Amino acid sequence: MKNLQVVLASRPQGSVAENNFRFVEAAMPSPGKDEVLVRNLFLSLDPYMRMRMNEGKSYAPPVQIGEVMVGGTIAEVAESKDPRFRTGDIVSARAGWQQYAAVGGGTLRKIDMRGAPLSTALSVVGMPGVTAWYGLLKIGEPKPGETVVVSAASGAVGSVVGQVARFKGCRVVGIAGGTAKCDYVVKDLGFDACVDYKADAFESRLREATPDGIDIYFENVGGRVFDAVLPLLNAFARIPFCGYVSEYDNSTTYGVQHLQSLLVSRVRLQAFIISEHLEIWDEALADLSAWLLGGKINYRETIALGLENAPGAFIGMLQGRNLGKQLVKLA
Amino acid sequence: MKNLQVVLASRPQGSVAENNFRFVEAAMPSPGKDEVLVRNLFLSLDPYMRMRMNEGKSYAPPVQIGEVMVGGTIAEVAESKDPRFRTGDIVSARAGWQQYAAVGGGTLRKIDMRGAPLSTALSVVGMPGVTAWYGLLKIGEPKPGETVVVSAASGAVGSVVGQVARFKGCRVVGIAGGTAKCDYVVKDLGFDACVDYKADAFESRLREATPDGIDIYFENVGGRVFDAVLPLLNAFARIPFCGYVSEYDNSTTYGVQHLQSLLVSRVRLQAFIISEHLEIWDEALADLSAWLLGGKINYRETIALGLENAPGAFIGMLQGRNLGKQLVKLA
Repeated sequence: MKNLQVVLASRPQGSVAENNFRFVEAAMPSPGKDEVLVRNLFLSLDPYMRMRMNEGKSYAPPVQIGEVMVGGTIAEVAESKDPRFRTGDIVSARAGWQQYAAVGGGTLRKIDMRGAPLSTALSVVGMPGVTAWYGLLKIGEPKPGETVVVSAASGAVGSVVGQVARFKGCRVVGIAGGTAKCDYVVKDLGFDACVDYKADAFESRLREATPDGIDIYFENVGGRVFDAVLPLLNAFARIPFCGYVSEYDNSTTYGVQHLQSLLVSRVRLQAFIISEHLEIWDEALADLSAWLLGGKINYRETIALGLENAPGAFIGMLQGRNLGKQLVKLA
Repeated sequence: MKNLQVVLASRPQGSVAENNFRFVEAAMPSPGKDEVLVRNLFLSLDPYMRMRMNEGKSYAPPVQIGEVMVGGTIAEVAESKDPRFRTGDIVSARAGWQQYAAVGGGTLRKIDMRGAPLSTALSVVGMPGVTAWYGLLKIGEPKPGETVVVSAASGAVGSVVGQVARFKGCRVVGIAGGTAKCDYVVKDLGFDACVDYKADAFESRLREATPDGIDIYFENVGGRVFDAVLPLLNAFARIPFCGYVSEYDNSTTYGVQHLQSLLVSRVRLQAFIISEHLEIWDEALADLSAWLLGGKINYRETIALGLENAPGAFIGMLQGRNLGKQLVKLA
């Protein structure tokens, strides 16, 4: 029996292409002492993976050519040499773009879905949800009546940010690409408004949608969108700085003009990587699970079937073709 | 007896010109109930004043056409209707570009120089020093062995930032315009290095001067200098964001390319206006006074003589022609 894997074949020059990936049929891994063999059920596709494909300085070492692509998964324990896990346990893992992996038991987290769909352990009650929880609540510190703007509003992180901000009493304005996404953000997710950054007059429409200015800007995309937000910031605005997906393809950079606004509005900006804040995960997941099961958080998923379709789904996500959380179902 | 004043005659289009100011001989003001008539001895000239000359949103309302230019002064009490002050008391005041002012006693702070020159109450032991103290120590939180970079390093704020950072155990690199300023920063102020942003290959020379990266960047200027610093920031770097003087003339803006570095290095950026942190002034001034009297802080002043020379001195400061703190001696 073989283990199908997706490895990095070459570093993208600009946009990712399918031939940056290569499929490999590896031998089935065997767990060593204190290791667990897991069978991946769902693979999460996330924008940060694009950064890991680049050479050079980032917050984590790049994936090397020939290495399996990194990624979070939901998996089933197939064989365990760690006494904390038994065959059949469902866990969240960092087991990558492959069918099976032998990993240290300490890297696994047992999952108790309490009735929620398993896949949501990779979205609302997983890394994207915890990212939203931490950035919005701990950095943004929303107060009732404030205006919260979130970019990539229909995405796995942005959709949670906006819905939580709304039931915390804020006015919430999303930014997303295209009419379909904006409709989803307003009608299904309940945001007060959503502005299409691909449409004409984006900057002036964002201004019209935020008549009281912006108190919290949850940043996922950077570049031109960030530049449009800056002049609208209120005094003492907060910016949880979570992503800069507009330039992960790093072939071009946008020159941001309005940084003087940071000073004018005495802004606090805090960039963060949620994997560096493990101390808050339990509290965040408990909140998120309760909110999901209580019907306070809506979500949508785009699910590709089979590891064979992971590269295409990943490219589509970077191009904004998915709606909601992008997953790959492996088994 | 008349009161010579400098009022805003017109808003600058781009760079400030002398004809944006007008001299007025006003009647001598008379203090009302709880007011104090002060005679200005020294007027502080500071970059923030340029922002106050512009129309539009900023952190403080603009000076209106025909109004006296705002500014901090050291003054002598000429007549007091506030029981806390007596004729002859020396005070710091926000008494503006004029010889005399009648101001509320609550806006004054009595000065005890403990032997330091009076003018330093507008530099090291005044607003610029407190700005440096707060931004460096409370936002920057320097630790021994870290690298601190400060722009406008020869200025009233930057010179204090660098000297304090150095005796807190940091490696300190200044950024300044021209050889004379850089020599002053290294030889007189004791910085480890200084990079001339007007010289060729500024970006690569800054990189060479910070072989261990940058842990704290004290921002006074923005634009191209900020862009050069961003890729050099270490993980968890802090940016006390104090000024953006490169664009106070607001005729052009520089498009900053490297903001993705904020994310890569999980940077915390906090913009601030020192007048909004009055609770720390007493502690800061006590520290700064002790450091100055103990010989731990060196400083230099450029002093214009007479209010007639204030507009020219202000324009010169914005063009970087002064060295150290720019003052006007009025009496």
